[in-house]
Amino acid sequence: MADIRVTVWNEFRHERRSAEVAAIYPDGIHQAIANGLRAEPGFLVRTATLDEPEHGLTQEALASTDVLLWWGHLAHGEVRDEVVERVRDRVLEGMGLIVLHSGHGSKIFERLLGTRTGALKWRDDGEKERIWVIEHGHPIAEGLGEYIEIPKEEMYGERFEIPAPDELVFVSWFEGGEVFRSGCCYRRGKGKLFYFRPGHETFPVYHHPDVLRVIRNAARWAAPTVGAHVSYGRVEPLESLKG
Amino acid sequence: MADIRVTVWNEFRHERRSAEVAAIYPDGIHQAIANGLRAEPGFLVRTATLDEPEHGLTQEALASTDVLLWWGHLAHGEVRDEVVERVRDRVLEGMGLIVLHSGHGSKIFERLLGTRTGALKWRDDGEKERIWVIEHGHPIAEGLGEYIEIPKEEMYGERFEIPAPDELVFVSWFEGGEVFRSGCCYRRGKGKLFYFRPGHETFPVYHHPDVLRVIRNAARWAAPTVGAHVSYGRVEPLESLKG
Amino acid sequence: MADIRVTVWNEFRHERRSAEVAAIYPDGIHQAIANGLRAEPGFLVRTATLDEPEHGLTQEALASTDVLLWWGHLAHGEVRDEVVERVRDRVLEGMGLIVLHSGHGSKIFERLLGTRTGALKWRDDGEKERIWVIEHGHPIAEGLGEYIEIPKEEMYGERFEIPAPDELVFVSWFEGGEVFRSGCCYRRGKGKLFYFRPGHETFPVYHHPDVLRVIRNAARWAAPTVGAHVSYGRVEPLESLKG
Amino acid sequence: MADIRVTVWNEFRHERRSAEVAAIYPDGIHQAIANGLRAEPGFLVRTATLDEPEHGLTQEALASTDVLLWWGHLAHGEVRDEVVERVRDRVLEGMGLIVLHSGHGSKIFERLLGTRTGALKWRDDGEKERIWVIEHGHPIAEGLGEYIEIPKEEMYGERFEIPAPDELVFVSWFEGGEVFRSGCCYRRGKGKLFYFRPGHETFPVYHHPDVLRVIRNAARWAAPTVGAHVSYGRVEPLESLKG
Repeated sequence: MADIRVTVWNEFRHERRSAEVAAIYPDGIHQAIANGLRAEPGFLVRTATLDEPEHGLTQEALASTDVLLWWGHLAHGEVRDEVVERVRDRVLEGMGLIVLHSGHGSKIFERLLGTRTGALKWRDDGEKERIWVIEHGHPIAEGLGEYIEIPKEEMYGERFEIPAPDELVFVSWFEGGEVFRSGCCYRRGKGKLFYFRPGHETFPVYHHPDVLRVIRNAARWAAPTVGAHVSYGRVEPLESLKG
Repeated sequence: MADIRVTVWNEFRHERRSAEVAAIYPDGIHQAIANGLRAEPGFLVRTATLDEPEHGLTQEALASTDVLLWWGHLAHGEVRDEVVERVRDRVLEGMGLIVLHSGHGSKIFERLLGTRTGALKWRDDGEKERIWVIEHGHPIAEGLGEYIEIPKEEMYGERFEIPAPDELVFVSWFEGGEVFRSGCCYRRGKGKLFYFRPGHETFPVYHHPDVLRVIRNAARWAAPTVGAHVSYGRVEPLESLKG
Repeated sequence: MADIRVTVWNEFRHERRSAEVAAIYPDGIHQAIANGLRAEPGFLVRTATLDEPEHGLTQEALASTDVLLWWGHLAHGEVRDEVVERVRDRVLEGMGLIVLHSGHGSKIFERLLGTRTGALKWRDDGEKERIWVIEHGHPIAEGLGEYIEIPKEEMYGERFEIPAPDELVFVSWFEGGEVFRSGCCYRRGKGKLFYFRPGHETFPVYHHPDVLRVIRNAARWAAPTVGAHVSYGRVEPLESLKG
Repeated sequence: MADIRVTVWNEFRHERRSAEVAAIYPDGIHQAIANGLRAEPGFLVRTATLDEPEHGLTQEALASTDVLLWWGHLAHGEVRDEVVERVRDRVLEGMGLIVLHSGHGSKIFERLLGTRTGALKWRDDGEKERIWVIEHGHPIAEGLGEYIEIPKEEMYGERFEIPAPDELVFVSWFEGGEVFRSGCCYRRGKGKLFYFRPGHETFPVYHHPDVLRVIRNAARWAAPTVGAHVSYGRVEPLESLKG
């Protein structure tokens, strides 16, 4: 089987502005995630960031991407609409998309889901999170225990304005009293979309082995399939009706 | 129970351009549908059309609408984006939306579902359609038999690029060899969305008693609920964690 | 609209064996729930218990029941199989069924869902529960705030071996570190099924106004619809194919 | 990757009683399906039939089966209940199950889904079927065109009393006027379940290359995953709560 070609996209602003964040992710969140993918064979990993030309997401870059990962937070509004449409077209044609943590507020996530995906509760107090496995037979949960425990994380709480996921793989528990749908699968067009909650920039979440394991699992799950050939537009009826 | 306030929106172009269509719908498709709703008590019905100011969908009009019906075809592109966003906000806050036939290609349907909802197969040969009931306990199927037969209709065929519906109520059979997901329910934000396939302008489909029955059923189903109160944004933790 | 005929079924063993439980539910859990239903107009409420002949669920009793509520715990195995089949048939023909708390382990719940619904985590330490609203537009959440807080409850935790619900209305948070899918809707045949988690016998959960509100909401939601007429078996083809 | 161990189970009665059926499947339907699986590498295929001891489904046979295929029709009632429970347990623990055609009426299918899965419409006139692809990105549709055409088949029509599938991959069109949900995916416990409609014994359906392709695709899709480790029963709370 050919390697899965993954592009890890990162806004890459926090890391360059905040010494606290830079201390955790000296090369950027994208590099931590890329290293996590490279820890096992089967992935061909590149990165792309907001401030590159076309945000690093040219037609060519996307055409050779099987799965795109998306981390953004501060600058969702700076992502150009034509790049958003380009990514959307690729997803609908079969590219996988994995949206991470604050990427829930990104243009591409809202564009593909249709609701105000930025709407949720939050609290940045560094509290304990347990990401419980709901569907233990799902390939995205492969190799996990009953839950992933994150010692300190930003809390996200329901109500989260997303369409009910096609498959709900994880639900988070937070020390301060909230729950959250943390692992959400969607099929959109020919492509697959996974939202995975953890990953605040001020905590070393993308160094957690089980978080990286889920990201690898999700990249395998979201990789394009050959699928069936379909077409759209005017068609002829059965011969028997033509007469 | 208060009456359900329904606004029937129609592009209203075919009827003014084509003698064939005007013969079937002399007052416009919207009036045929409005009359169908008025045939039973419980609805307060208004209409709105593309060429009215703000397409007849002012803030005030939408604020007093419980369920919006949408028929469009020729001029999807003329619907102004700010009106689309206004309708979307109202749906996410609880207004029901029923999208009819060629309305599948409308901006509002695509905006709320996220996929290229205009993509499907079609053939305008006036062939027989049977709209089969799949979920016979669903309130939208109330009072029907096993299927609705439409003697002559435009065909729509799969693959139809929509997210898998939350509930699939009807599937159509066409004489020429195709099938179609013809009754699709979605929950988006606090609102409910129903797509109902039949209704080509050159056939008297909105005079068919069972088609009108489904539209009344759907308007009742899509009417807003009080629901639960939710809020978004920063929240405080449990008292026990504050100490 | 005619009153909804609700039958509240209770195993009614704990209350007769334990002074602690009897102090909370002197007339049985079924009477507390029945009183909660009677607190608003629109319900015609009866009760039935395990030790009545045919468990109080004769053909006649079921034939005049629109919605059946089920609370059981100690004696699931004593419910006779022919009564389970009788209840199942009624649900598939349209009767609503609301399964409460430890009723997850009942024969009827497992029979209708197919999985080992008794399988979950638990801990009976009387800890705080927050039942979060996930679908705030759902009629079962009508009139609630963001969550229902139960000061002391038995914990149920995931993994809970149920089929993914058709609609997930509530998710619980527990003080001790777990989450649970606490409000689960299913359509089975023509009937509707709702599982609602809270209700341990040693805590006054069925005196909590919001728990009773949810039960009333669920009874309204689960009430039978007229629906469409369907039939099964051999059928004739289209006339055109007969020739 | 290790080969997928597939057991093809067949009632194997029609073939021994009817010269017409034997002419199409001289070695039994199971051998035709087994040959279809063996046409590509990656499968280790065995067969089992009703009249073998324990129907060929001993604990050992099931323990070494990754995916079980099921074809039955005349003798559903002869399958022993303890074997049904044994198969069910294996599915809930992760074994894949593919139910074919008239297997919809089998004990195991009804046991896992909970509804009266035998209920549907039918007509055995040898009419044309088109199995349309609904989810073209689904791995079960891999390598297909827009539909599979079967020149002569038994018709199955809706209403089919199944729970709404988790994923609807195929919908059939029949010449005589009906539609049917022909490719239905379910997750039950840790296992996956696929229902695939075509396959009447009097037509050479299991010699059709695309039908065999779907069966291979489904066997790959349904193969067990490692998944996450879960447990059930009493658990301890967070340390912080124990104090």
